[in-house]
Amino acid sequence: VPDLRHLRRPPGHRGLSQIRIAVDLLGGDHAPDAVVAGAVLAAQRDPRVVPALVGPPEVIAAAFRRIGAADDAVPVVPATQVVEMDEDPARAVRAKRDATVRVAARLVRDGAADAFVSVGSTGAAMAAAVFTLGRLPGVTRPALAVAVPAPGGTTVLLDVGATTEAGPDLLVQFALAGAAYGSVLLGLSEPRVALLSNGSEPGKGDPVRQRAHALLAGLDVAVGGPLRFIGNVEGGDLTAGGTADVIVTDGFTGNVVLKAVEGAVTAVRRRLAEAGELPAAFAALTKDWGVEGQGGGVLLGVDGVVVVGHGSSSPAGVAAAIATAARAVDDGLLCRLRTALADLVSRRRVAAGLPPGVTVAP
Amino acid sequence: VPDLRHLRRPPGHRGLSQIRIAVDLLGGDHAPDAVVAGAVLAAQRDPRVVPALVGPPEVIAAAFRRIGAADDAVPVVPATQVVEMDEDPARAVRAKRDATVRVAARLVRDGAADAFVSVGSTGAAMAAAVFTLGRLPGVTRPALAVAVPAPGGTTVLLDVGATTEAGPDLLVQFALAGAAYGSVLLGLSEPRVALLSNGSEPGKGDPVRQRAHALLAGLDVAVGGPLRFIGNVEGGDLTAGGTADVIVTDGFTGNVVLKAVEGAVTAVRRRLAEAGELPAAFAALTKDWGVEGQGGGVLLGVDGVVVVGHGSSSPAGVAAAIATAARAVDDGLLCRLRTALADLVSRRRVAAGLPPGVTVAP
Repeated sequence: VPDLRHLRRPPGHRGLSQIRIAVDLLGGDHAPDAVVAGAVLAAQRDPRVVPALVGPPEVIAAAFRRIGAADDAVPVVPATQVVEMDEDPARAVRAKRDATVRVAARLVRDGAADAFVSVGSTGAAMAAAVFTLGRLPGVTRPALAVAVPAPGGTTVLLDVGATTEAGPDLLVQFALAGAAYGSVLLGLSEPRVALLSNGSEPGKGDPVRQRAHALLAGLDVAVGGPLRFIGNVEGGDLTAGGTADVIVTDGFTGNVVLKAVEGAVTAVRRRLAEAGELPAAFAALTKDWGVEGQGGGVLLGVDGVVVVGHGSSSPAGVAAAIATAARAVDDGLLCRLRTALADLVSRRRVAAGLPPGVTVAP
Repeated sequence: VPDLRHLRRPPGHRGLSQIRIAVDLLGGDHAPDAVVAGAVLAAQRDPRVVPALVGPPEVIAAAFRRIGAADDAVPVVPATQVVEMDEDPARAVRAKRDATVRVAARLVRDGAADAFVSVGSTGAAMAAAVFTLGRLPGVTRPALAVAVPAPGGTTVLLDVGATTEAGPDLLVQFALAGAAYGSVLLGLSEPRVALLSNGSEPGKGDPVRQRAHALLAGLDVAVGGPLRFIGNVEGGDLTAGGTADVIVTDGFTGNVVLKAVEGAVTAVRRRLAEAGELPAAFAALTKDWGVEGQGGGVLLGVDGVVVVGHGSSSPAGVAAAIATAARAVDDGLLCRLRTALADLVSRRRVAAGLPPGVTVAP
């Protein structure tokens, strides 16, 4: 199998004849059947996408039978161990060489897959990614990014839960990574990046936000920086659409706010349904905002394309997560991220009085 | 005018013949007309409620004429200065003795009003409250609490923006204050209090959340404490209804998450309206979730009833904020808060090896 991972394609070019996605079988509330059915669905929807199920072959064979799929519907890569939800993810991933999520990450590292997808524990997927693939130069901790669609336009939100605590420097890394992702996802040469705060004025927020605001202002294109920083935005801007293309926050706040938005949409739907007035337009809206839109978040900052889906994913949700991973591969996301973060490394070297080479390890 | 502020009424007793609310005229995007019209509306809706407009008499007289109200529709208390939105609130409140918000707070302190309401800057209202009324014993920083209605039941969320940074000890204060408010607002003897985090497991969250979780578990009724602590909840539980009665977080997260929920509901409405499918049930839903439901948040931890409304409040929003303040007065909120926080003071004294008297200043 050719290693396509390091292939540099010009931005905007989409033309891979085959995109291979390793899929962690043993993650999520509805594994293995929802994962197997989702992989089969993803392959049917896009013939270029080749999902490989990573898990115990006999479990996969039984699931194929239950869902009525052929026993060679999608390729299978054997792996026997599982990271349980109640285990410490980092420790479990280290201890279990044959854990499905770790084997999936290894396939990416070895060039046998272009990306991996898991709907299991975010912590386990992140540990497997960092441990097996490593971080991109300039990255201290990865961030999970999701696309939030709204009437006025889609917004990328990160971090939604990979890194619970983030100081000003990490928020800057997230901003650069988010800008690179926003650029490929939204097709914008210069996405508008904003900092989530409790008010739009520059002085708003806790000290972390205030310092991050100052650092990001120093990286703005207006002062020769690599980023189009538009300042602070508020919680309502997340779904307003059109305010910002990329909204940056720490993983704690991002996780809470994303689940609050999903919960609010669900609550509205319940109320309208109870009143017997659920409009047809709600279906499309739920598709965009719910688990079946993007299917999950993209883990930015690791040396590979990794998509982490909702644990509650249905087959359609798993298929959407696979499609999101395939699109990130096809769009050359990793190359863009590398470039965006290399700029940060280079600036740090210059700030430290070193030549701006980008060949140093993080 | 009799001082009703320190009147102790048995919990659940509602029978004040008159509830006097000082209303800060010069706050909010639509002042003075929306504030004046809101006060008139509140008085019309509940004859026991006597809103007193605090501001320049000639401005109020002109507003009465514009909205077609009699020139004695509601009482007027003169005050001439205003805290501008771009001023440092604490400094401006200290400097301006005759600022409308400070005069409103003074009316409460002097027993001439039972509560004050402002739809201006939260910072200015908080500064005026802390500076003029002082904090309740046991309170380091106040918190702003709002009621979030959902199909399964109403949830109290705090802090939504009074105190941007909150460590574990402050979160414990907020939990006790929130429980007292939840108790009077929801009529529950033992409201279920939860900590907002990025996962329901006890180990979830940043170090502040982890420590707060441990402290709150130590105050649980199961171990003889004053609180019914049910552990961590996630962002989606805010509008799920029925998960928790009181959800506690820092003012940064609470502000972002509340605005995100309001924004999501607005975005859903826009999408359905664009599709020509806006159901009638949405009106009631917007009333509950929007600015016209509660009208604002209740500032907990200061020695007086204070309601801070949205800056964008319409007359109906101002009237709702006045009604929320009146209800808090009628429900004996301050007495409940004092009792709940005295328990904390008493516990601290015991922990410090002192007798559990509650007469000490904070």
